[in-house]
Amino acid sequence: MTRDPLPDPLLPRRRFLQVGAASAFLCTIGGETVSLSRRGDAAKADAAAARVARPRAAGPTEQQTFTTPEPQPGGQVVEYWIQATTARWTIVPSRRDDWHGKKVPGASTFRAVVYQQMTPGFAAPLGPAAMPGPTLHAEVGDVLRVHFRNALPESLDQALTMHPHGVRYNPEYDGVYLGQYTRAGGFVAPGEEFTYTWEAVPESVGAWPYHDHGPNHTLNTMRGMFGGLVIRPKGEPVPAVEKVLFLHSLAPPVTGLKRQFQCINGRSFAGNTPTITAKVGQEVALHAIGMDNNFHDFHIHGHRWKDSRGGGHTDNPTLGPNETVTARFVEDNPGRWLYHCHVFSHQDAGMAGWYLVE
Amino acid sequence: MTRDPLPDPLLPRRRFLQVGAASAFLCTIGGETVSLSRRGDAAKADAAAARVARPRAAGPTEQQTFTTPEPQPGGQVVEYWIQATTARWTIVPSRRDDWHGKKVPGASTFRAVVYQQMTPGFAAPLGPAAMPGPTLHAEVGDVLRVHFRNALPESLDQALTMHPHGVRYNPEYDGVYLGQYTRAGGFVAPGEEFTYTWEAVPESVGAWPYHDHGPNHTLNTMRGMFGGLVIRPKGEPVPAVEKVLFLHSLAPPVTGLKRQFQCINGRSFAGNTPTITAKVGQEVALHAIGMDNNFHDFHIHGHRWKDSRGGGHTDNPTLGPNETVTARFVEDNPGRWLYHCHVFSHQDAGMAGWYLVE
Amino acid sequence: MTRDPLPDPLLPRRRFLQVGAASAFLCTIGGETVSLSRRGDAAKADAAAARVARPRAAGPTEQQTFTTPEPQPGGQVVEYWIQATTARWTIVPSRRDDWHGKKVPGASTFRAVVYQQMTPGFAAPLGPAAMPGPTLHAEVGDVLRVHFRNALPESLDQALTMHPHGVRYNPEYDGVYLGQYTRAGGFVAPGEEFTYTWEAVPESVGAWPYHDHGPNHTLNTMRGMFGGLVIRPKGEPVPAVEKVLFLHSLAPPVTGLKRQFQCINGRSFAGNTPTITAKVGQEVALHAIGMDNNFHDFHIHGHRWKDSRGGGHTDNPTLGPNETVTARFVEDNPGRWLYHCHVFSHQDAGMAGWYLVE
Repeated sequence: MTRDPLPDPLLPRRRFLQVGAASAFLCTIGGETVSLSRRGDAAKADAAAARVARPRAAGPTEQQTFTTPEPQPGGQVVEYWIQATTARWTIVPSRRDDWHGKKVPGASTFRAVVYQQMTPGFAAPLGPAAMPGPTLHAEVGDVLRVHFRNALPESLDQALTMHPHGVRYNPEYDGVYLGQYTRAGGFVAPGEEFTYTWEAVPESVGAWPYHDHGPNHTLNTMRGMFGGLVIRPKGEPVPAVEKVLFLHSLAPPVTGLKRQFQCINGRSFAGNTPTITAKVGQEVALHAIGMDNNFHDFHIHGHRWKDSRGGGHTDNPTLGPNETVTARFVEDNPGRWLYHCHVFSHQDAGMAGWYLVE
Repeated sequence: MTRDPLPDPLLPRRRFLQVGAASAFLCTIGGETVSLSRRGDAAKADAAAARVARPRAAGPTEQQTFTTPEPQPGGQVVEYWIQATTARWTIVPSRRDDWHGKKVPGASTFRAVVYQQMTPGFAAPLGPAAMPGPTLHAEVGDVLRVHFRNALPESLDQALTMHPHGVRYNPEYDGVYLGQYTRAGGFVAPGEEFTYTWEAVPESVGAWPYHDHGPNHTLNTMRGMFGGLVIRPKGEPVPAVEKVLFLHSLAPPVTGLKRQFQCINGRSFAGNTPTITAKVGQEVALHAIGMDNNFHDFHIHGHRWKDSRGGGHTDNPTLGPNETVTARFVEDNPGRWLYHCHVFSHQDAGMAGWYLVE
Repeated sequence: MTRDPLPDPLLPRRRFLQVGAASAFLCTIGGETVSLSRRGDAAKADAAAARVARPRAAGPTEQQTFTTPEPQPGGQVVEYWIQATTARWTIVPSRRDDWHGKKVPGASTFRAVVYQQMTPGFAAPLGPAAMPGPTLHAEVGDVLRVHFRNALPESLDQALTMHPHGVRYNPEYDGVYLGQYTRAGGFVAPGEEFTYTWEAVPESVGAWPYHDHGPNHTLNTMRGMFGGLVIRPKGEPVPAVEKVLFLHSLAPPVTGLKRQFQCINGRSFAGNTPTITAKVGQEVALHAIGMDNNFHDFHIHGHRWKDSRGGGHTDNPTLGPNETVTARFVEDNPGRWLYHCHVFSHQDAGMAGWYLVE
């Protein structure tokens, strides 16, 4: 669509650093601090994570035991088998930005770490090794029983977890590394399994993230270890169109790639990010969740909705890291629409997608 | 007011870059990616925008036609004529910060691109070529019919648009460049006109931004192509004091100026930013809208109000790019008050103004 | 807990600057602009603040006089004596991150400037010279009468103030330096006292910050001049557990220290930040307030609550500078929990703490 399509400028190194500088930060990984500021730094964080030893049996408070919760009367046990695994992940599979009609040259494939849904007993893959992980569903009164396996290869020797938002859990199922206070579910080493039990309580209604909260949680979350939880009131019908959309960046220190990508669900640029389709009259629920160090806002062209946090109508609410905003409406406006983060520099670097309404 | 008023330090180049680094980002402009990170980079973005060709007639989805909406029974057609034009724009006309009693030395004039209100048929200017563009008003049930003309000079050969928030529109009137899927209103070349029709529906009540969403939208929005829309319930009286306040920055890569200005409505520092006046007993509505890559919050001294997004009272809500928060109250507190963004570094760099109550 | 605990890497200078670059900004201090971007720059800001002369009697608007408010019928005068003073402040007293079981080597002590509670007539200290200042409490209908003394040493020759959020006050008690429009309470020089009178009105219910808003407000706020106000409905019982938590950073240009600390109430890393304790069945109210240039969000493991700004339930709301979000719930989930900012790079640099429930 342009007279003179040019490749992306290969920025001189100094300018690359300048433009990408916002992605630099320090990680605390067990006993070490690692700077994630340059390509290649992920390997240093992984090496630090490999040095984190399994915590000893913890002190008095942590010897407290907890009962594994069961469903409320009328509720169910909803079981999932999920493994953590690596995946060759391509951020721009089409090598094209379908919004601007633009080629996106250059490499965009890296080794992601993701949650993959498996059949019962981890017998076989049930879903792809993809970003985000599977969306977990439950109704109020149910418990989620999530069997988690760390299936990382030997080359990535580090403990992982699943930490959920929104649902209720006792400390046994928090899925967090806490140094000497760590419980079993907070340090699942390669080859190990752990079963988390989470309760869908009335205040859990909505969409929430889950993510790694092990010793190397920041790097792991930033390279793909996240997914969504959707909790519905008992018996409430599922919207015809429902999608969890993670807004996040994939940065050079994390990916080893040359450029920073602004992503939705691990993909950059329209045609690669999720293309959402709906029909007039359908109930639509889009849950946008922040999943990096930045703040975002979430705009859908041609639509407004009641702010999920109360008050009036919005078409562009702010969301922070691991915060959810939900756009919910009955579709009434056919056409090809853009949805995107309205931080201009995120939008222009790929955080945009198509919403197509018949 | 100071013993020893000094000029602004002329920062050594390295420190200037350091302090200004947050303003660097990449723009996607049709088939090209341009880094806006240094003074002068705006010219590169404009050159890229000039190379964006008019999109062909688009594919099947985009051949769908839409009916131009008419007002609801009892509603009106509210017409505006608005042109995009350049303006010599001075960010600190008084060369003074009236809050701190401080001179603001150095150049603050650059070539902005703005929306200007015209008389019917574009016969003559009806308002200034200023930042922000005119505030457009409608009531629920009305349609806004906005005649838009791209009156850029030959030296700025690029297509422009008007993209509104909050109101309802079909894809014909989205005002967005979408590459091969672009409709006529998404690519208004210099010398061309297009008429947008937008509906004020019940969920449109409130204040919203409009802005350029053509091929070079990021640069254009950041150099002045934005304005406000205020939609009221049918017959609701206009508040005695109402103002749309855009919180944004004017950065060296955009302006070519030496320093970064933190602005309200294109102006920096109290006495240059809008001085708002009210009387005790008057209904006051101040709509703060983010209009850059940053997040802000909006504080008015001496006042609190019910959060426009629901919940309790606030005096300092957060707002993201193109998000609105409204401070609405009946004035009861006379005096000279500051209003400002409460990000300290924005406040100190000019994002503050006077609110005077008799 | 780690096989090989290493000291923090001493970052080479270039990388240190890169990682810390986000902390650089300009301050306007009376007639001068000072860049806070390097260690040692605080001294330049202080020198500029010392050059700010006491404003003359201001012009006509400012000669307006105001009546000092009295309590509503049934309300009380709640008096506080508070002085501003310096304090040797240690950010990581334990030199340890109790979450990760990690040593935190390196210096973390600097000269803070803080609000200290005194007995009536400033006779003696009633509380520590600590960060944050004392939490001030009132009920709707009360007035807060806050006697403030600038007790800075001669070496820090600058005017200070107390500026509150949330409560009602007339311009006499705004506590803000306004250049030539400054009232007495906006310029309290070393050795001077001023009594502020603030009204707890119905819309004041909630938790709010107070902070310095004198000529050098940005630096002073960033080195400790802030505290909390909690206003309750008349007669409402105090929650069994209530805490005001300030989320902020202590950066090298402010502290003169080598590294940037991400803090809660002036402390970094679990075991140094507040350890909050509660019992099952207790009413808990935690008020998180942003107090730097950044945006944060506030997550408590194992808990959800109704968003204090309206709408559904949350476990991780966004907050901006000087914005409050309140997590309020009846405790029902015993165990050792983390609370933290969910900006990953803040969490990993110390913005996390323990919440222990019996």
